[in-house]
Amino acid sequence: MSLTIKLQITSSISPFKLNPKTHKNPIISHFSQIPIYHYNKLTNKATTFSPIRSKKMKPHVTKSSLIEPDGGVVVDLIVPEDQRDLKALEAETMAKVRLTKIDLEWVHVISEGWASPLKGFMREDEYLQSLHFNSLRLVDDGSVVNMSLPIVLAIDDETKERIGGANDVALVGPDLNTVAILRSIEIYKHNKEERIARTWGTTAPGLPYVEEVITPAGNWLIGGDLEVLSPIKYNDGLDGYRLSPKQLREEFDRREADAVFAFQLRNPVHNGHALLMNDTRKRLLDMGYKNPVLLLHPLGGYTKADDVPLDVRMEQHSKVLEDGVLDPETTIVSIFPSPMHYAGPTEVQWHAKARINAGANFYIVGRDPAGMGHPTEKRDLYDPDHGKKVLSMAPGLEKLNILPFRVAAYDTVAKKMAFFDPSRAKDFLFISGTKMRTFARTGENPPNGFMCPGGWDVLVKYYASLQAEEAAAPVVVSA
Amino acid sequence: MSLTIKLQITSSISPFKLNPKTHKNPIISHFSQIPIYHYNKLTNKATTFSPIRSKKMKPHVTKSSLIEPDGGVVVDLIVPEDQRDLKALEAETMAKVRLTKIDLEWVHVISEGWASPLKGFMREDEYLQSLHFNSLRLVDDGSVVNMSLPIVLAIDDETKERIGGANDVALVGPDLNTVAILRSIEIYKHNKEERIARTWGTTAPGLPYVEEVITPAGNWLIGGDLEVLSPIKYNDGLDGYRLSPKQLREEFDRREADAVFAFQLRNPVHNGHALLMNDTRKRLLDMGYKNPVLLLHPLGGYTKADDVPLDVRMEQHSKVLEDGVLDPETTIVSIFPSPMHYAGPTEVQWHAKARINAGANFYIVGRDPAGMGHPTEKRDLYDPDHGKKVLSMAPGLEKLNILPFRVAAYDTVAKKMAFFDPSRAKDFLFISGTKMRTFARTGENPPNGFMCPGGWDVLVKYYASLQAEEAAAPVVVSA
Repeated sequence: MSLTIKLQITSSISPFKLNPKTHKNPIISHFSQIPIYHYNKLTNKATTFSPIRSKKMKPHVTKSSLIEPDGGVVVDLIVPEDQRDLKALEAETMAKVRLTKIDLEWVHVISEGWASPLKGFMREDEYLQSLHFNSLRLVDDGSVVNMSLPIVLAIDDETKERIGGANDVALVGPDLNTVAILRSIEIYKHNKEERIARTWGTTAPGLPYVEEVITPAGNWLIGGDLEVLSPIKYNDGLDGYRLSPKQLREEFDRREADAVFAFQLRNPVHNGHALLMNDTRKRLLDMGYKNPVLLLHPLGGYTKADDVPLDVRMEQHSKVLEDGVLDPETTIVSIFPSPMHYAGPTEVQWHAKARINAGANFYIVGRDPAGMGHPTEKRDLYDPDHGKKVLSMAPGLEKLNILPFRVAAYDTVAKKMAFFDPSRAKDFLFISGTKMRTFARTGENPPNGFMCPGGWDVLVKYYASLQAEEAAAPVVVSA
Repeated sequence: MSLTIKLQITSSISPFKLNPKTHKNPIISHFSQIPIYHYNKLTNKATTFSPIRSKKMKPHVTKSSLIEPDGGVVVDLIVPEDQRDLKALEAETMAKVRLTKIDLEWVHVISEGWASPLKGFMREDEYLQSLHFNSLRLVDDGSVVNMSLPIVLAIDDETKERIGGANDVALVGPDLNTVAILRSIEIYKHNKEERIARTWGTTAPGLPYVEEVITPAGNWLIGGDLEVLSPIKYNDGLDGYRLSPKQLREEFDRREADAVFAFQLRNPVHNGHALLMNDTRKRLLDMGYKNPVLLLHPLGGYTKADDVPLDVRMEQHSKVLEDGVLDPETTIVSIFPSPMHYAGPTEVQWHAKARINAGANFYIVGRDPAGMGHPTEKRDLYDPDHGKKVLSMAPGLEKLNILPFRVAAYDTVAKKMAFFDPSRAKDFLFISGTKMRTFARTGENPPNGFMCPGGWDVLVKYYASLQAEEAAAPVVVSA
């Protein structure tokens, strides 16, 4: 598949040129005047936006940080170039631990500081705090940072045996290249049942990350401090969009952003999403921010088989910007390298926490974030409201401004995506992800205004290619 | 069964009369010199005891508090006597919610402030924080208190229907007496699977509290502020031993305790326990405390069928004090009214937190606290070390001094219970609860020195009475 991604990710623009009121995008001119709510973490009450941060802001000054990373510093575990040869030699002397593709994604995540202040795979104390408290207490000052997902490395009995009493091990990627050293290791039991129950709130069979990652994994976890021999690359043509938290912070500074609002997604962008993002920007301007920047931040690690693959999504996002649905001048599209757990309220905290480390001080949370259907029962796995509730109360996320997502649907009267108005509910059409995929698969067009035509074409082509593949595949007849 | 409990629970004694070095109890004179460890919550490292609190202590001054209750005040939800008639009349006008025996135990727990600052059954925000974070952030000042177990009241569809849009409901006990009012109620979904998974870390069938309490309960939870019409009493001859947190704090003051160390138990006290408790007292004296008091605090609420019942345990504890194994002058025996979840590391936090509210500033934690066998697999449900690890890191418990339990076993050389010495492991005999019960059931005596004879007799008689009951029961022949 040939990609035609032309995202502007490095342009340095003046924060004062853009005026959404005069912007020509027809969607923007139809913004409804629905308030965005701001969750006050102490009173746990939603109030309408107040410019609480704008007093502290000094616009037009390059800032290293709109929001402090967890632990005060963005962790960077990439070995400096001049030490790489030496460390690589040293690693050759160590017991080897083989990484899966998804383990390597976690090495990437940890190495760039998305999980700051975590400096490696979790040791047991960190693992237990994550499982029980969704947070870590820092040794230095007793402060608390959010850490809702266990970020762990599993090994099997044979590997544990082979490591023996060693202090350090070498981590070897799926392609057999040595990618990292794990220092001062600690090996402890991997109680899968407990990990699954406390992370997902269910042990029902059929959770994608559990089936593909946890169940086949070994019965031990190995924690330690990570030293990564060189930056993790995928060579899939998208590495240029994989900005690290440090690079993103630099980019926000270069653009002189005085607010950054992050939008986590693992699906194509339709006009309802765009409406929300543009509306958020407008609200931030109304609050007094001069240059709010959108971080459109698709998840790039493991996703389940029926999700749209990253390359297709990136192409679709590119079209959304090309078609002017989102403004490239105030949008940064970058890939969030984390794998997906589909763990609802537990995982959404991770999604928000990682964006703090990347410098976003506003986070948009949707209905049922990181949710999915219950794997064995006919219902959502999570209460759709729990994600934003848990996020608004989560330890360590007090400094982040949480923006609950307004529900958008297709307004059959206005013939466009609009915020749902319960007083005329019958005018609205909800187009689920499943329905959208069915449209794209059958070649049927969604209602006009659901998604920009360029973006929609990308999806149609993707599903057509899938069907061609299926048609070409040999038919297996079971005995 | 006739009880002969003669516990000294109100005597006011001088803190200077007791000298354990001259005390005649033979067990005390054999204390081994094993250090007690103190967990530093910030560094999460165990260090040997240092008299960190003794600097702040002002011995010999009656203090209202050795440790501040969570939220600053011990909650007291009992309606003052002069308002009871009026409130009872008002309650008659309200929709009724029927309580189970165990619901009523929770009313008791909440009403006396064991769960301070909780003022009633949890609303959804509290429930979610408890499930996900094992803690609550206080609205007033943003501070965090521990709250690891959801303390909730379930109702069924029919009751929810009957309540309709009411603001307040009346709570009716199993005997149909109105016991409380629940104000400003909130009704929300009772997702049992998620509650069980996040509380126990498993959803395997056979968890006692789940089977007896949660599975039969309704699909809704009702939260609100509790007003209890009169103190909860059980009329079982033991109400005098059910001191509230407020009464315990008063008793500690009356005794001029300058340290209170709590021992949670739901089993008979053997000499290994006693060794530990007496050793702890000695260590506290060595640290400079002048009058450390032991709170021997058996759990009095729901326990599983094969645990020894409360009345038998109280009689056994009484014998332990009569026989001089524990010193009545520096021991307070009182009943902790909470039901038992058997939820390991999650529950031990509740056990510790409730004792903070009762004024204990030291908490002894054992191996595998609140643990049990896995209900469907041949292993412990929890890693035996996780309880003390989780406790030492738990949010909101930083102010409590955690004392990890040294393992005691029967020393076949010294012919007494002693701290386990791994260098001569073969000399030690581990007598499990199951083995102890088998001894008592079969009338066989445990090794001399395992338990004081008076205490042992109580158990033997209890198991003999069980066997007599079994023998007298009609034999049911299945068709």
